[in-house]
Amino acid sequence: MDYSKAKPAEVRELIREGKLTGQTSGMCDGYAQANLVILPKALAYDFLLFCQRNPKPCPLLEVSDVGSRLLHTIAEGADIATDLPKYRLYRKGELAGEYTDVSELWQDDFVSFLIGCSFSFEGDLLAADVPVRQIEEGKNVPMYDTNIPCESAGVFHGNMVVSMRPLPHDLVPKAVLITGQMPRVHGAPIHIGAPEAIGIKDLAHPDYGDAVTIREGEVPVFWPCGVTPQNVVMQSKPDFVITHAPGHMLITDVKNVNLKY
Amino acid sequence: MDYSKAKPAEVRELIREGKLTGQTSGMCDGYAQANLVILPKALAYDFLLFCQRNPKPCPLLEVSDVGSRLLHTIAEGADIATDLPKYRLYRKGELAGEYTDVSELWQDDFVSFLIGCSFSFEGDLLAADVPVRQIEEGKNVPMYDTNIPCESAGVFHGNMVVSMRPLPHDLVPKAVLITGQMPRVHGAPIHIGAPEAIGIKDLAHPDYGDAVTIREGEVPVFWPCGVTPQNVVMQSKPDFVITHAPGHMLITDVKNVNLKY
Repeated sequence: MDYSKAKPAEVRELIREGKLTGQTSGMCDGYAQANLVILPKALAYDFLLFCQRNPKPCPLLEVSDVGSRLLHTIAEGADIATDLPKYRLYRKGELAGEYTDVSELWQDDFVSFLIGCSFSFEGDLLAADVPVRQIEEGKNVPMYDTNIPCESAGVFHGNMVVSMRPLPHDLVPKAVLITGQMPRVHGAPIHIGAPEAIGIKDLAHPDYGDAVTIREGEVPVFWPCGVTPQNVVMQSKPDFVITHAPGHMLITDVKNVNLKY
Repeated sequence: MDYSKAKPAEVRELIREGKLTGQTSGMCDGYAQANLVILPKALAYDFLLFCQRNPKPCPLLEVSDVGSRLLHTIAEGADIATDLPKYRLYRKGELAGEYTDVSELWQDDFVSFLIGCSFSFEGDLLAADVPVRQIEEGKNVPMYDTNIPCESAGVFHGNMVVSMRPLPHDLVPKAVLITGQMPRVHGAPIHIGAPEAIGIKDLAHPDYGDAVTIREGEVPVFWPCGVTPQNVVMQSKPDFVITHAPGHMLITDVKNVNLKY
């Protein structure tokens, strides 16, 4: 079944009913998908401040009201506890289980953070004939820890995680201009060309995701990555955090094109 | 004395020493100035969330650590309690005094919010031959309450305040493009042309600031305004809030041109 032309609300309903539990990549063409971090209110101020101070890796699309499973703007009628196909529960920074529904785990002090995802700019890159290697190769994007420090906020601190897409030299400026128009989904690259300058030793062994082919005449281009906030949260080992499972995102009602304005 | 060519740190030092206590308009050409709201930590989460949900009227440039009088990024070495020329203290939403130094009032639960200001895009408008009427007429920009609701957050709710600059019809698109490049200082207009559509009855009687001349063939153009957050905070009548006095801003080390990137 191909859900690329489906409407977000229809797919969210199928997910809610347990009829879809797989990855959301390729679903609902043209609509933004969002990363999820659910934290107890006691940690929410520090995390919100961390995102404010680090908007490139942590571009917030929406923050829920305390205890509410609903959103105001990016996904009308969505239920945060049921409308993602797969969730992960972490206790003290350790994976403690995967769930297709977190209603039973819900607490009235939970705050949900929905964070923009670079899926949103990949459509524009492809439309402009800029290749996206991990899509060509059917892989997950390669992601790397770096030595680029984030601005700390309260208990949260750590370095930026980046995603990498190799590009022919002559397409790099075009890719910068296209993604620079979309700061709400990580925006322009944070680094071009010299992985060792940002603390990356071996492009063939990413810290997350899959390695991709870098061809002769191509340069590695690095974007701030939405794994950064999850990584930083885990390092602080909070008692209880829920996130989406990788690739199992919230499909929002926001068109990617509207993230430019 | 003309401080238009002075460096921000030099002017902040003169202000700290009490040698400058007037408005900062026209000082340190090319550098961003910031609005200030200081709230106790108990209100800081709701206010930070309000700004996250309403980035057009409330573009945050920086949020201090709890209790700290220092900033990390926009003004190195600045002391929030002394480096603005004039402050206002509000108790339960009522003006309770003006100060040139709030060191004596400082509490260890204070959080400072520095908010972008449309001064930053007026330089670009003028450079591109787009007239800025209140500057031509030596007045404060006219500001109006509207019927445009902000997204609520916790105790904070209210309508947007807008600033107005009248423009010849043919310059409106250029002004949209120029200011649209600077979302961190309110960005593109929120409304063009029909004041009654956003609840403004009489352009000749602004709710804040001064009326300006609208010439034959000109259209009123409205931008989200940094008075919005102050207005919303006052409506909630918190026990204790400190703000800058109108026009008496923090002069930051951030060049306006860098607010585009």
